[in-house]
Amino acid sequence: MSVVYVTRRERFNAAHKLWNDSWSKEKNLEVFGKCANPNWHGHNYELHVTVKGTPSADTGYCMDLKDLKDIVNDKVIEPLDHKNINLDVPFMAGKMSSTENIIIAIWEQLEGPISETGCTLHKLRLYETENNYADYYGGE
Amino acid sequence: MSVVYVTRRERFNAAHKLWNDSWSKEKNLEVFGKCANPNWHGHNYELHVTVKGTPSADTGYCMDLKDLKDIVNDKVIEPLDHKNINLDVPFMAGKMSSTENIIIAIWEQLEGPISETGCTLHKLRLYETENNYADYYGGE
Amino acid sequence: MSVVYVTRRERFNAAHKLWNDSWSKEKNLEVFGKCANPNWHGHNYELHVTVKGTPSADTGYCMDLKDLKDIVNDKVIEPLDHKNINLDVPFMAGKMSSTENIIIAIWEQLEGPISETGCTLHKLRLYETENNYADYYGGE
Amino acid sequence: MSVVYVTRRERFNAAHKLWNDSWSKEKNLEVFGKCANPNWHGHNYELHVTVKGTPSADTGYCMDLKDLKDIVNDKVIEPLDHKNINLDVPFMAGKMSSTENIIIAIWEQLEGPISETGCTLHKLRLYETENNYADYYGGE
Amino acid sequence: MSVVYVTRRERFNAAHKLWNDSWSKEKNLEVFGKCANPNWHGHNYELHVTVKGTPSADTGYCMDLKDLKDIVNDKVIEPLDHKNINLDVPFMAGKMSSTENIIIAIWEQLEGPISETGCTLHKLRLYETENNYADYYGGE
Amino acid sequence: MSVVYVTRRERFNAAHKLWNDSWSKEKNLEVFGKCANPNWHGHNYELHVTVKGTPSADTGYCMDLKDLKDIVNDKVIEPLDHKNINLDVPFMAGKMSSTENIIIAIWEQLEGPISETGCTLHKLRLYETENNYADYYGGE
Repeated sequence: MSVVYVTRRERFNAAHKLWNDSWSKEKNLEVFGKCANPNWHGHNYELHVTVKGTPSADTGYCMDLKDLKDIVNDKVIEPLDHKNINLDVPFMAGKMSSTENIIIAIWEQLEGPISETGCTLHKLRLYETENNYADYYGGE
Repeated sequence: MSVVYVTRRERFNAAHKLWNDSWSKEKNLEVFGKCANPNWHGHNYELHVTVKGTPSADTGYCMDLKDLKDIVNDKVIEPLDHKNINLDVPFMAGKMSSTENIIIAIWEQLEGPISETGCTLHKLRLYETENNYADYYGGE
Repeated sequence: MSVVYVTRRERFNAAHKLWNDSWSKEKNLEVFGKCANPNWHGHNYELHVTVKGTPSADTGYCMDLKDLKDIVNDKVIEPLDHKNINLDVPFMAGKMSSTENIIIAIWEQLEGPISETGCTLHKLRLYETENNYADYYGGE
Repeated sequence: MSVVYVTRRERFNAAHKLWNDSWSKEKNLEVFGKCANPNWHGHNYELHVTVKGTPSADTGYCMDLKDLKDIVNDKVIEPLDHKNINLDVPFMAGKMSSTENIIIAIWEQLEGPISETGCTLHKLRLYETENNYADYYGGE
Repeated sequence: MSVVYVTRRERFNAAHKLWNDSWSKEKNLEVFGKCANPNWHGHNYELHVTVKGTPSADTGYCMDLKDLKDIVNDKVIEPLDHKNINLDVPFMAGKMSSTENIIIAIWEQLEGPISETGCTLHKLRLYETENNYADYYGGE
Repeated sequence: MSVVYVTRRERFNAAHKLWNDSWSKEKNLEVFGKCANPNWHGHNYELHVTVKGTPSADTGYCMDLKDLKDIVNDKVIEPLDHKNINLDVPFMAGKMSSTENIIIAIWEQLEGPISETGCTLHKLRLYETENNYADYYGGE
């Protein structure tokens, strides 16, 4: 019973800003710099979703990546793509839209639906730019 | 006197939306789809700036790429990076922020300052995503 | 009236072999080496389709890339993706499946439908691997 | 005695299809979709082979990557490159050619020869496309 | 208190050679091949620095990546970029300049300054070429 | 008789410095900055060689890319790879080792041998880094 880790890459393009409502404009600009531009900026985010499982004898699949793609599109890409992360995304409401907080929120969206398929969500990677990215394994 | 084409890549992250003010909301959403999301979306834009020249006997350079980098940062990256292209960028005021119009406007920013150095701006390439990009040679 | 060149990237995964039916097996293996493996091999092909036009005052678009994507998918990706180029693709019937011949055949599929939209097909690039690719401008 | 993980990337181009011989054609097409195209399709596979070791005081190497390259080429690339994975590859005989099963079979090819060098095979990554890939650590 | 892993990518261009001073020229060339070219060769190295932390409630950051960038530039990129690793870099003095030894030395430069910020250095990845790279987790 | 442009990518890793022997050390450092580091630095250069031809009816090839690879390796990669461009490369002797001058010198190495095959060298692209590259079409 060999465990294999299988990854699907998806992408979304979104606007956001880093802004702490309990701070003054000056403090926001001091801490977040250009990431606090009041009129927003944006990114081409790239998300890698890794599930863990053992290949089925019938299909050779841990999980049909078409099914994984459908779950990721339904739960993550549809709500985030071509949206404003701070304003338009229910599962980000009231949260700072840092890469760290976005990746934790995406995990919460995906963990249940993936476990219902019999596979286990193992890891997320979220690229904000080619130079900055975050990894998350459920918090441990 | 050999002509060589030299390119510098720079990047900027910006918010925008496609929206024609003379149209109804319905028509904007019909034509531009998710690109017309009222609260904006955004991209990691990647810009390639190509100049044309003959290498100097003293330096082997057509143009010192540090100088080209400085011009591009001053005239293009600084005004666009971490900004809203529709709201924050003087040279895009009143223009649809399509990749086509952005690349034409960037050409107008760069052509003069580069020609003052004795080199000639030859080509721009602007990636909006890994799947969509535009090239511009000054309009011909 | 500024001419801008706009590109859409699409991908397809296909099997093929290089085999000249008028030659012996020995000659095929001598000329084409491992590319003549009788049981086929395959590639992740990457296609860049560049159209030429002037941006519309209403949309800022030379051509809506969703429309270009639909044409490319309908005329090229659907017939080629997850297919055997030698056996399954009507527009490659009777042709050697070299990158050169595939790119010429793709041009013939796309030139008419793109010109019906008012834009002009300008260039194709087809990657067979990260090290080998072809460009085509309609034959000139 | 510091443990370092060293990786060599290699590539192979191969044809395959997903097909369960104990199923009807209809069921194969239903489950595997276009991946069950009877005349095959193919991919540019990209393999990352990671070994674990401590750098030698004499060479600074955990393992000479030329030696690792030779082992990977001999045991994996030569049997798979420009081949049909279902028909031509002894170590895949009788197995579904999913990315999961291919990566497990590659591990079995490499584990012994690498351990004979005094290093330990730690991880494999196998890309089927830029969007789909598998990781394997020997089954745990 | 969710642990997130955050990565910053930086690059440096350096010359080096693999050469064991206690060996003859012949033995160096035999063991290291072209990597022992007496007049040096060089690489575009790419470094990924991963820190581990829990996002701050105020900022959403594990660590401000501008601070991480500054530490990496000060301790690693400045000493290595456009330098000869064997001759110019104090923290590599007397060490074979293999990717393995460079990554260990970079860890020693970064571990202290990063822990002073309250975050923990978790992993380094160092690409010597697109085909060869090393990972390091502090030696375990 | 359709003209197709076919490209082969090859890579080499080399040391160099920018240094004008007729200038003082101070002037070299002033003009070339860190590129004038006396003990050299280096790069992973990436070269794209594009030939122009019409596909053969027998093979579908403009030029067998194995032949192009052999010519490029023999005339360019072998002399440059793991070498010091200023000291070890006969065809760069007495020239500033700027990307511009290297690409012109590579053209002179390749133009004759490629034209002997019946194809025409059309274009070279040489990447010094992911941000800086040069194109050359023979000087026009």
